Amino acid sequence: MEFIGVDWGSTRFRAWALLDDGQIASGVESDLGLKSVADGNFSGALTETCGEMLTGAPGMPILLSGMVGSRTGWKEAPYCACPASIEDVTAAAIRFDIAGHPAAILPGATCVDGNGHADVMRGEEIQIFGAADMLGLKDATICIPGTHAKWASLVGGLLTGFQTHVTGELFALLRGHSLVGQLADGDDEDLDAFRRGIDHGMKKAAAHAVFAARADALQGKLAPKAVSAFLSGVLIGNELAARPQGGMGATILLATGVLAERYAVALEHVGEQFVVVDAKEAARAGQMLAAKTLWQHAAANGEGA
Amino acid sequence: MEFIGVDWGSTRFRAWALLDDGQIASGVESDLGLKSVADGNFSGALTETCGEMLTGAPGMPILLSGMVGSRTGWKEAPYCACPASIEDVTAAAIRFDIAGHPAAILPGATCVDGNGHADVMRGEEIQIFGAADMLGLKDATICIPGTHAKWASLVGGLLTGFQTHVTGELFALLRGHSLVGQLADGDDEDLDAFRRGIDHGMKKAAAHAVFAARADALQGKLAPKAVSAFLSGVLIGNELAARPQGGMGATILLATGVLAERYAVALEHVGEQFVVVDAKEAARAGQMLAAKTLWQHAAANGEGA
Repeated sequence: MEFIGVDWGSTRFRAWALLDDGQIASGVESDLGLKSVADGNFSGALTETCGEMLTGAPGMPILLSGMVGSRTGWKEAPYCACPASIEDVTAAAIRFDIAGHPAAILPGATCVDGNGHADVMRGEEIQIFGAADMLGLKDATICIPGTHAKWASLVGGLLTGFQTHVTGELFALLRGHSLVGQLADGDDEDLDAFRRGIDHGMKKAAAHAVFAARADALQGKLAPKAVSAFLSGVLIGNELAARPQGGMGATILLATGVLAERYAVALEHVGEQFVVVDAKEAARAGQMLAAKTLWQHAAANGEGA
Repeated sequence: MEFIGVDWGSTRFRAWALLDDGQIASGVESDLGLKSVADGNFSGALTETCGEMLTGAPGMPILLSGMVGSRTGWKEAPYCACPASIEDVTAAAIRFDIAGHPAAILPGATCVDGNGHADVMRGEEIQIFGAADMLGLKDATICIPGTHAKWASLVGGLLTGFQTHVTGELFALLRGHSLVGQLADGDDEDLDAFRRGIDHGMKKAAAHAVFAARADALQGKLAPKAVSAFLSGVLIGNELAARPQGGMGATILLATGVLAERYAVALEHVGEQFVVVDAKEAARAGQMLAAKTLWQHAAANGEGA
């Protein structure tokens, strides 16, 4: 199944042509995020940015994911409700035509907790299905760190539910714009301070625990250069204390780069066994699954009809 | 005991002449916060702003509290360690002379939790002693809402410990500068949404619970006009879940205005019995206690020597 995968967010555009074996034949990346598209001409922006990748492969399917499917994107693809399989997700895709290419925008996923409150994700669900496929797993607990970190449960191949934690966004706000982060000097990696932060955040409410980053610094118990790492630890520890535990299957840390390293340290520190899967590889693996479901099955059905 | 009380913060200056019975003889308020004082001439700024209040009462003691005693203020008055009585706090005051007036800058208070992390307050300790004195109590749990809300324990007249929750600061950051508050339309008081927020915040970790303000809005479960009240409820509920419970004595809500009303609704909602004390009255009552300890006792001792 060859196709063009597009990850289109608010500030970044990424596209790649994927071969049958999941290898990348070509790729393009630009700053042409959704916010930068003039006059809502998303079609023009896409074809112009992809250029030869599109014109050289007439009729090749285009799979779009990310904020491109949100209310403020190109076309809204309403969230698919949990429990959901990869087939449920792709069935909810918005299908249309881009300059002769069959195209689909993937929806996000939504779930409702025991108190009736909603949760949403957009893009992570494809990474989750991709990671599980890479590992050959049907049951897993998946942690995806980030601005809005996700903890998801996969049971029998179905995404049954998930919780968002705005850990990354809180860290950025508190580190950069609050009295809590005011005494920080730089953002050194300090694993000792980070682990002490995790211990504190595991035990105390977040709005209280973060204040130790200020109070300890004022009282000479925390060096200004260690404040940032400590604060990061407090917030991640608070997230880990609320993580789903005791589920079936492995715990997958789905991440890349610094965040992958940081969460690996944190999960080890709290004694959680886990497998790391690269987030970008998982995204491609998930897109491959989705593309097959969307076009290969359809083509096979068409041939059989 | 007649004296001049000064509450000098980063952005505001307030002073009042207090009579023996705690009544205010005169007062002055200005924007001359600590940040606005040129060339570190705090003495000049104070005497100029107070004018006749000072020159008309030669030798009258001046009691200063607030950030004026912090590291970035006029003179640093190091935090007094808990457990602390009002006498311990005043004994740690920085005493000096301002244009012939005996003066003192009050310290803040500090405590250490079971994990060795520090907490600090500056100014609230005087309000706490003042409120307890107004009510004739030696044992109480005191809640002071605000940017950095405090929950303190008074046992046998001693401030034994306290916890800061950066609830107000988190609300301002999330409401004004995050994706969580992005879908909010205005800041209407909506008690129903506020109470639903409290219920959610009582049960879930803050970084997760606040995300419902976005996800519920995206899924049409929460009106944009109710997002702000819901978010406020989530954060206050999360704070209330971590409050000290089962202590001796009454619970005192030490607050003024909108925050007093909002926390009263929240405490009622979670079934907590409490007494409300006006924060400004408590501050004056506490200053009166401190001034008596600093100068009346000293004068009496002097006369007796």
